[in-house]
Amino acid sequence: MSIVMAVNTGSSSIRFALYRMDQGEIPLYTGALTSIASKDAMFSVIDSDGHALIREAVCVADHGAACEHVFGWLHDSNTLRPDAVGHRIVHGGPLYSSPQVVSPALVESLHGLVVFAPQHLPQALQALDHASRLFPGSTQVACFDTAFHRSMPDVARLYALPEEVRRHGVQRYGFHGLSYQYLMSELERTVGTEIARGRLVLAHLGHGASMAAVKEGRSIDTTMGFSPAGGLVMSTRSGDLDPGVLLFLLEQEHMDAAAITTMINSGSGMLGLSGISGDMQMLLDAVGDSHRARQAVDLFCYQAKKTIGAFAAAMGGLDSVIFTGGIGEHSAVIRQRLCSGLGFLGIELDDGRNHHHEPVISGEASRVDIRVMATNEELMIARLVAAELSAHE
Amino acid sequence: MSIVMAVNTGSSSIRFALYRMDQGEIPLYTGALTSIASKDAMFSVIDSDGHALIREAVCVADHGAACEHVFGWLHDSNTLRPDAVGHRIVHGGPLYSSPQVVSPALVESLHGLVVFAPQHLPQALQALDHASRLFPGSTQVACFDTAFHRSMPDVARLYALPEEVRRHGVQRYGFHGLSYQYLMSELERTVGTEIARGRLVLAHLGHGASMAAVKEGRSIDTTMGFSPAGGLVMSTRSGDLDPGVLLFLLEQEHMDAAAITTMINSGSGMLGLSGISGDMQMLLDAVGDSHRARQAVDLFCYQAKKTIGAFAAAMGGLDSVIFTGGIGEHSAVIRQRLCSGLGFLGIELDDGRNHHHEPVISGEASRVDIRVMATNEELMIARLVAAELSAHE
Repeated sequence: MSIVMAVNTGSSSIRFALYRMDQGEIPLYTGALTSIASKDAMFSVIDSDGHALIREAVCVADHGAACEHVFGWLHDSNTLRPDAVGHRIVHGGPLYSSPQVVSPALVESLHGLVVFAPQHLPQALQALDHASRLFPGSTQVACFDTAFHRSMPDVARLYALPEEVRRHGVQRYGFHGLSYQYLMSELERTVGTEIARGRLVLAHLGHGASMAAVKEGRSIDTTMGFSPAGGLVMSTRSGDLDPGVLLFLLEQEHMDAAAITTMINSGSGMLGLSGISGDMQMLLDAVGDSHRARQAVDLFCYQAKKTIGAFAAAMGGLDSVIFTGGIGEHSAVIRQRLCSGLGFLGIELDDGRNHHHEPVISGEASRVDIRVMATNEELMIARLVAAELSAHE
Repeated sequence: MSIVMAVNTGSSSIRFALYRMDQGEIPLYTGALTSIASKDAMFSVIDSDGHALIREAVCVADHGAACEHVFGWLHDSNTLRPDAVGHRIVHGGPLYSSPQVVSPALVESLHGLVVFAPQHLPQALQALDHASRLFPGSTQVACFDTAFHRSMPDVARLYALPEEVRRHGVQRYGFHGLSYQYLMSELERTVGTEIARGRLVLAHLGHGASMAAVKEGRSIDTTMGFSPAGGLVMSTRSGDLDPGVLLFLLEQEHMDAAAITTMINSGSGMLGLSGISGDMQMLLDAVGDSHRARQAVDLFCYQAKKTIGAFAAAMGGLDSVIFTGGIGEHSAVIRQRLCSGLGFLGIELDDGRNHHHEPVISGEASRVDIRVMATNEELMIARLVAAELSAHE
């Protein structure tokens, strides 16, 4: 087994990467089809030297057409065939805490999990189906974004709801697990065991945003819960709410569940607050002129900062904070705001290092080690697939 | 103005207290009618010497009958007439940040707030109506449980929801304000300004439970939000949830809003988790035998502890923690669990002092001052009424 393809299906995109895994981790192709079903749909592929092979507007009506386009290109344009294809599966439900080789029984089981992630899971299952048919010689592996958090203790896993509701799988799952797993494996590989085994807050801050408390290498808590709409305020998602809010919208405002679903996932968060955008950079550019843009950025920072304090309380203190994701990797001002006023936790940012996005951005006197890391879910998937297959050899 | 009656209408009880406010704060009668509309309904009155005047089972079908019984007794059994009656009004909506003398226009406005608290506000309005009719010479004053939190900044007040929803009053209000106001006034009176003006976490832990972050005497954040079902896990209420949970219950489990409302308010929290009871003492007695009772207590403690960390982050550190409410005042073991592992915040409990429920339970070396205080919402109401009326004289 040497060539692994990682497929990362999002709500409006398919990202993929092909790696040779037998001699290091050599990327052969990485690519994406973005803005599926919109007039801005774009297909791009980069080769192993970092050269753009393709960058073209495409017309794809839905995820099915996008799968045809992406996998068709891979199939037709070169003779490489993946030995295995790893798929990011956003929700593993209560069952799956590790990657699973795909079988007809597994596919059936995954279809049973669609109720937990009706916005996200069907697209990934579609990609899995397409890849199986086009690359019949390859082993398909499901890699779950919830798996990393299956180590969470009951206090972080349970909702305070009646048993008859929890029995149907209503519990806190957590997401961004592949990203967090990648950060942990990179930390261990490049920085060492001492830091990786400490008390960490991992902050994956992007369009979707979550934070995880990781102690001795295991997730003990995370902000997202049952669905990717929970936890922190995000670009367009509300985060956790008083249940009284939804009941008010249903009973007094006569909204239905479908309208609330759309609002909570696509019309809330920083977009809902600002009325301008859910994009952090656009909001930061607008804070001088727009009171509401400022409120949106303020609320994002405030909730993330409170979470650092809450997770420190959960772990009895704090050794490291790791920033990743689009905002976490690229926005020095947001990292600065999240860390300000947390001197009592031992957090002291070095403004120069932070400004230059250096790997370590804490000051010499900081008791807490603060880092910026690039995440790579596709590489994590390839690593999991390689490990899973060699365990079965 | 010398005699003030405070009326505290709960979901299944009416508590009242009569004070002489012109010569200190002399309690004349305190009493309650509890378990309204149940076979356990009980009416009790204690006089100024602490002697039980009445303690009898009663039969009252609803809050209206309970009002007749309570106010009728006050009216018929003695010649004292209150000069003013202060009512605890659970929800003041976006408008009211201070007590209001009741006028027909105010009553109409309060009826408009019932949409925000359909479980609680109608009963208080009924009590207000009864008291007005039976004591026509008295001034009625509405005292809002949300008022104390109207000082919260936007980051604590806003939900990340679209403007068109927030415009209808969907925001974080916070509750237990009369209790928190009482704690703050007592702190200032008995302990002094230095502590009262510091960075405090106030923990009102009872059947309903919330915590507040208070800085320089003003509420800057609190766990309950739009409704009393939000925030922490409570006896029978869920606390905040991932909105995806409610959407799952609506769409996949086909529950309706009424069933969810009942579940969230009466069947969740520690009762829902344990399947045994929502009463903390009963659960503590059961933890040795019941795994689920232990989970319920664990989750209550875990969330409250995380909130101490989150509020410390919001305030840039912590000077005092004040415990009140049934659990906060009486459960040494819960206070111990909430404080354990928070040495990094400067929290060090003195086990002996805590065991004896002393006013100060922090150790000599603790950087954070930790206290136990009895709350008194009725006396706070009487104080607010006296202040409000003397401002109008």
